[in-house]
Amino acid sequence: MTKTDIARRVYDNAWKLDPVVRSLLDTDFYKLLMLQMIWRLYPEVDATFSLINRTKTVLLTDEIDEQELREQLDYVRGLRFTKKEMIWLAGNTFYGRKQIFAPDFLAWLADFQLPDYELSRRHGQYELTFPGKWTHTTMWEIPALAIINELRSRTAMKDMGPFALDVLYARAKAKMWSKVEQLRTYPDLRISDFGTRRRHSFLWQRWCVEALKEGIGKSFSGTSNVLLAMDTDLEALGTNAHELPMVAAALARTDQDLREAPYKVLQDWNQLYGGNLLIVLPDAFGTAAFLRNAPGWVADWTGFRPDSAPPIEGGEKIIAWWQKMGRDPKEKLLIFSDGLDVETILQTYRHFRGRVRMSFGWGTNLTNDFAGCAPMEISGLNPISIVCKVSDANGRPAVKLSDNPRKATGEPSEVERYLKFFGTEDFAEQVVKV
Amino acid sequence: MTKTDIARRVYDNAWKLDPVVRSLLDTDFYKLLMLQMIWRLYPEVDATFSLINRTKTVLLTDEIDEQELREQLDYVRGLRFTKKEMIWLAGNTFYGRKQIFAPDFLAWLADFQLPDYELSRRHGQYELTFPGKWTHTTMWEIPALAIINELRSRTAMKDMGPFALDVLYARAKAKMWSKVEQLRTYPDLRISDFGTRRRHSFLWQRWCVEALKEGIGKSFSGTSNVLLAMDTDLEALGTNAHELPMVAAALARTDQDLREAPYKVLQDWNQLYGGNLLIVLPDAFGTAAFLRNAPGWVADWTGFRPDSAPPIEGGEKIIAWWQKMGRDPKEKLLIFSDGLDVETILQTYRHFRGRVRMSFGWGTNLTNDFAGCAPMEISGLNPISIVCKVSDANGRPAVKLSDNPRKATGEPSEVERYLKFFGTEDFAEQVVKV
Repeated sequence: MTKTDIARRVYDNAWKLDPVVRSLLDTDFYKLLMLQMIWRLYPEVDATFSLINRTKTVLLTDEIDEQELREQLDYVRGLRFTKKEMIWLAGNTFYGRKQIFAPDFLAWLADFQLPDYELSRRHGQYELTFPGKWTHTTMWEIPALAIINELRSRTAMKDMGPFALDVLYARAKAKMWSKVEQLRTYPDLRISDFGTRRRHSFLWQRWCVEALKEGIGKSFSGTSNVLLAMDTDLEALGTNAHELPMVAAALARTDQDLREAPYKVLQDWNQLYGGNLLIVLPDAFGTAAFLRNAPGWVADWTGFRPDSAPPIEGGEKIIAWWQKMGRDPKEKLLIFSDGLDVETILQTYRHFRGRVRMSFGWGTNLTNDFAGCAPMEISGLNPISIVCKVSDANGRPAVKLSDNPRKATGEPSEVERYLKFFGTEDFAEQVVKV
Repeated sequence: MTKTDIARRVYDNAWKLDPVVRSLLDTDFYKLLMLQMIWRLYPEVDATFSLINRTKTVLLTDEIDEQELREQLDYVRGLRFTKKEMIWLAGNTFYGRKQIFAPDFLAWLADFQLPDYELSRRHGQYELTFPGKWTHTTMWEIPALAIINELRSRTAMKDMGPFALDVLYARAKAKMWSKVEQLRTYPDLRISDFGTRRRHSFLWQRWCVEALKEGIGKSFSGTSNVLLAMDTDLEALGTNAHELPMVAAALARTDQDLREAPYKVLQDWNQLYGGNLLIVLPDAFGTAAFLRNAPGWVADWTGFRPDSAPPIEGGEKIIAWWQKMGRDPKEKLLIFSDGLDVETILQTYRHFRGRVRMSFGWGTNLTNDFAGCAPMEISGLNPISIVCKVSDANGRPAVKLSDNPRKATGEPSEVERYLKFFGTEDFAEQVVKV
């Protein structure tokens, strides 16, 4: 209305901070589901989460100011779930189920606060770790990643003028919309937003989610971002993550405990959740080993989320296993979520169409694809492969192997031990982009 | 970020409508409390609501375009309670009570839609009526008034340039803040926002509410606006209104029924609500008549809301009645809500301090006080005295007398009949400003 809002301008100039994460609900839904399970079954376990930048060529200490990073992390530590958010968590229906969160868990959550962090520099990277009770450190994963990624974007755009920025976002929107146009030619596709952790920024993720909502309609199943799900009346989506078998394996005292760890956490899960939440994440220590040792009841679960094998190859192996177990894959669900973009989504969809139910969790290439959008070359806008993983549990080292050796995490000697134990038959090295 | 957001500009230019009321929660909380009672106890009663502009010198047909008015009313008819809003109504605590709204009522509310309206012109005014079931027409009162008042503001500001607008709002903010400064010298004051119906605009009401929240802190008890209560984590406040005794009186078939009508609806109310919701609104047919005929249990209620007598005079009469009934006024609550501004609030507060509990529902002079703010004389910014009242119930005429004959509504012959029946001993004509 007014050409320049003087009060707003002065207020903005005095800003101490433009927070990246402004709500504890600005996280992935699966963190809350897992948190309830951890709180219920593993309240005394310590688990340290650590940031790992797998893109070694990007030196984060060059791109992100330490003071700014600390201010952002401190800001999130000050957050609490608001009254409105608590009411929504208690009252909303998730996966068709009311009151998925128990009253005693919600009462505990109402006072939840993120614990302290440890931050230092080493070889051009930040060593950012979150030690403490698993019930608290687990909640750092998503905000920590979102903060690192958005601070990188801000640095990359810091010197751009208004026109360059205008062109940047115009191109990014055009690019995103052309993806929407490709996707909507397949009305049976089911796609969801899994892009919180590696997003360009919160506002850009919101734009992408709203674009999908308008653009592909019923093909858009929902978002993993709980805040966006609440604010845009979308389904909040997500099930469980590698941290469950990783912690269970780290705590194992015997070979038998170690072998059973990936199935034990599924049984834990099944104490709390059912139906479409019964999704197996098979690749923590290699999918082949997982399937080879799996008890029969695993085939009764609703579906699998292959997360590190190439989607067609990984999907075929799971389908073959279902058939071997006497199950009809047509009644099963495969959730693909690793490094997807329109081409891989459509290729996978056409490959499996009619043979299995499918759903695609679209992440980094949805919420952080600015390749070719900047009016000049800006490498800081390219997403990096960054994760925040459990590094130890009760003082014992934690390991993830995955189906792709480049995605393995943990101390090298421990990774070796796990590889010998679980086998390497599934390993096919792929380039890790995101 | 960008100097001009081209996409936004083009989008804005293509706007068909800038809706005044964008949510069914953008209403007064008491409407929802009353609605639950009406739905439970009077589901088959028909009640017509009618717009009444008591400021005859303002010709609304000159100030508001009929087509625009229709578009705004039609827009509100298309609204539904959103999923988030329904969850909040079910999960929030109101007046310290959980689940104040019963599940069967909420299930009905989920499909609620405003019924059709009738709009014509007469003598320079709009005749805007809402015929239909009471369970539906009652919900028109607040959005209808908010729309009329905000469309008036828009017309008044239509030809103002950016600098004039900047000055206008700057002065209005300064004026509002000086009120805050006066109020906060009395930390025991309890003030709430009752200004939805006659607000300058939704955004301005929000600004005023946020200013009070920051400015007077604990002295700000909450807001009657349900949407603002939800979005700003404030208490939603309000109890009941004249429509309850008005409909009960209109439906009365005998003199005894008519005499008992104001008390019968209090008994109805008490079937659903208790505690701080037990507030008597005594003036529908004159406070003196109400007190004279009141059964003893009325003195057990938590408090009174004198709504049309001068506050000190009206309060004294109620205190005297409590004393006569053997009650200690110190344990009772008076809620003042008629035409308040800082002066009357402070004067009343100082007068009764220590003798009775008090609360002030601040309306038009909170959310629509632009007197002296425009850089030129703009009469369209002066608030008008406009209401939306029950005009008949099941085809029988409805009447309100109040303690101020200028606030009486209803057909003149019916008003006469009620005056003869209830008496006129309390009538002292006052100027009605808002």
